[in-house]
Amino acid sequence: MSTPAPPRNRFERRRAETRQALVRAARQILAETGDTSASIQTIAERADVGFGSFYNHFESKTELFDSAVMDALEELGQTFDEHLRDVDDPAELVAAGFRLSARLADSKPELMQVLRHRGLSHLHTDSGLAPRAARDLEIGIASGRFVMSDPTVALTALGGSLLALVELRFARPDLDGDEAASNLAEMLLRMLGVPAEDARDVARRPLPDLD
Amino acid sequence: MSTPAPPRNRFERRRAETRQALVRAARQILAETGDTSASIQTIAERADVGFGSFYNHFESKTELFDSAVMDALEELGQTFDEHLRDVDDPAELVAAGFRLSARLADSKPELMQVLRHRGLSHLHTDSGLAPRAARDLEIGIASGRFVMSDPTVALTALGGSLLALVELRFARPDLDGDEAASNLAEMLLRMLGVPAEDARDVARRPLPDLD
Repeated sequence: MSTPAPPRNRFERRRAETRQALVRAARQILAETGDTSASIQTIAERADVGFGSFYNHFESKTELFDSAVMDALEELGQTFDEHLRDVDDPAELVAAGFRLSARLADSKPELMQVLRHRGLSHLHTDSGLAPRAARDLEIGIASGRFVMSDPTVALTALGGSLLALVELRFARPDLDGDEAASNLAEMLLRMLGVPAEDARDVARRPLPDLD
Repeated sequence: MSTPAPPRNRFERRRAETRQALVRAARQILAETGDTSASIQTIAERADVGFGSFYNHFESKTELFDSAVMDALEELGQTFDEHLRDVDDPAELVAAGFRLSARLADSKPELMQVLRHRGLSHLHTDSGLAPRAARDLEIGIASGRFVMSDPTVALTALGGSLLALVELRFARPDLDGDEAASNLAEMLLRMLGVPAEDARDVARRPLPDLD
């Protein structure tokens, strides 16, 4: 299920393109409804690839949809990595992740709808966002920035809160997304053991532009 | 969409039973897969009622599935109300809600699977658990037990964390559910402004038995 190596010749390039077209179609379907009842025929048509080629890439529809969610989570994780390269403070990394996510709900709705509809079942896997967040927590605990007894449970709270924030962005577009994300980040930093005043400040530091 | 008044005669009683059978079938389907692609025919067969009677009760499949989720959330809310009647401290109410939810994942898996699969889209509605949690937050803020600037966002974090805890129970049955729930409750109380030592204590107070 890992990302295939870069294609080396025309045959491999076409093969990779077909796979990518199927993943893209599955992502679109997940973003629209979260529903996985579409037939393989429908998905192949949407991807504009032959029905038969589906099984060259995936054993089942479940495998395709799982790959599609992981593809989205990996894109989100890379977006964070890219924009937060210069941030060292783990508290700021956590806060910025929430604030960027709220903005991405506006600028990349398809990506964030996939997270909204299918993110929960990927919270406790070791791909996508979870390992990145686990790494930030670990660094913060080691340096004394974070104080907690159970990092697994902290990750649970962060993941669930992120999904709920994305849900809030889509369900209540009238609310100020930046404000909500900063307030949420502030509360979660308190949860992680950051003193209240500090949490308030860190959750409002300047944020990198998304493009 | 509110719960109908108690039936007054045989006709109304049968009508209420038919509706309840459809809601129960929809709950079972949601618990199994979270998927809403089953046909009305399939749902009616599972409920053991005539296909035609579906439209006496629901305008669409969406309305039925929404009612099924609300039915589950209301059952959960009433379970909390019943068992936590004697608890006055809003911090203890929040903590006990999380700890009872972890236990209910074991004792009432169908109920909690509905929450797991469909709870997110009901986080920001005004039925089920959200209004109860909002009330506890309000009481806690008024008494100074909780300190926060944005109760909507606090509710978001609590709701998302509850879903993620239920997901964790089902995805990682090897973990100690009581321990995870208490640790999560402790962290969330810190988030709500409860001092760390106090949060630790409140999250471990004796819990009422579920039956």
